Amino acid sequence: MNTLGGPALDELQRRLGYQFIDRNHLLRALTHRSAQRDHNERLEFLGDALIGMIAAAYFYQRFPDEDEGTLSRLRSSVVRGQSLAEIAEGLDLSSCLILGESERKSGGRHRRSILADTLEALAGAVMLDASLETAQAVVGAWLADAMGSASPKDAIDAKTQLQEWLQARGESLPQYAVLDVSGSAHEQTFTVCCELKQRKLVTEAAAASRRAAEKLAAAEMLQKLSVSRDG
Amino acid sequence: MNTLGGPALDELQRRLGYQFIDRNHLLRALTHRSAQRDHNERLEFLGDALIGMIAAAYFYQRFPDEDEGTLSRLRSSVVRGQSLAEIAEGLDLSSCLILGESERKSGGRHRRSILADTLEALAGAVMLDASLETAQAVVGAWLADAMGSASPKDAIDAKTQLQEWLQARGESLPQYAVLDVSGSAHEQTFTVCCELKQRKLVTEAAAASRRAAEKLAAAEMLQKLSVSRDG
Repeated sequence: MNTLGGPALDELQRRLGYQFIDRNHLLRALTHRSAQRDHNERLEFLGDALIGMIAAAYFYQRFPDEDEGTLSRLRSSVVRGQSLAEIAEGLDLSSCLILGESERKSGGRHRRSILADTLEALAGAVMLDASLETAQAVVGAWLADAMGSASPKDAIDAKTQLQEWLQARGESLPQYAVLDVSGSAHEQTFTVCCELKQRKLVTEAAAASRRAAEKLAAAEMLQKLSVSRDG
Repeated sequence: MNTLGGPALDELQRRLGYQFIDRNHLLRALTHRSAQRDHNERLEFLGDALIGMIAAAYFYQRFPDEDEGTLSRLRSSVVRGQSLAEIAEGLDLSSCLILGESERKSGGRHRRSILADTLEALAGAVMLDASLETAQAVVGAWLADAMGSASPKDAIDAKTQLQEWLQARGESLPQYAVLDVSGSAHEQTFTVCCELKQRKLVTEAAAASRRAAEKLAAAEMLQKLSVSRDG
């Protein structure tokens, strides 16, 4: 099932900035479940967690004055499928994917979800193959440009972003509602939901103000949409 | 604002199995936003990501034959608020919380969400204070019992768990619907939603079978509920 020659793998490892001790880790990470039983979905689970941690640590250090809501949105902007797919394209993973026949024929090689998932699996593979510190450095380097160009300003206005995204598609606007207010007068927590009736999607978020909670809920909705609009 | 004496902090560090190099990391992690501006919410963001990564790595290694859906549910069972609050209670964090007056008066010291958040913040603080390998070992030890007692069997039947949880509260049962089916005949991906009409909550999940996707959506709903039922 492995259709990759040694030179192609050597090239890929150069691009990844990491030489695998156990090449099976690398091969498994490149293997889509359409190709064989021993595929990359477990590694994807592992790599997703590593990438989330790396992005959290990066934004925590880089933006000492931003609150956790902004940090969370900054991280989402990097770890969402579309962003990871672009990084995967930059590393030319397309040419190295190990796919089953039907995926190959239906253009799976350039499908963004497959590219993003494979990048996550590769992160998981590095984590298994190397020390945690090394994995952080290697995978951090893949993410460096995306993390470096993420700005709190872009991340901050998720409500407007969501509105524009929907308007561009001629869809009705999101509806926000307060589900719960708790806490004493000066430390209230607002829980709100953001609903897209047409798409039957709802997200929920809580924050110290209604406006902040709405923004968080909108950011979560954007994340949902960037996954579901993939294909 | 710091009402903790040196001996109490020394005791806490013994229970945590970690001696902070910079005691300010520890104090910040214990400080709820009701107490002062320099509180623990940013650290909580950091620690949440670390805990997620540690649990992912643990379950990946411990259950080599489980698929990513089961691994994800196993992790959720440990990183959800209720589980973290129990770990926080085991470490007796209650006695060490730095709270504002109103939170103190309203019983914040024993509020599960505050305990869980503080545990996450402490994980973030260790990550700042130590090497990543050390942080993984220290925080992994806090989670060890919870991770060790999580079983794929418990994790697997989220639909039944959700049903029982709702029935115990006299609420109507969840409704599942297929939102999308994609892929070729033998590699289909089913996207389903799980909706609690009474609570206006919806979750979504995708998997290779409708049944598997429904279970994932139910597991996500359980996670949502375990957060929102806190208090």
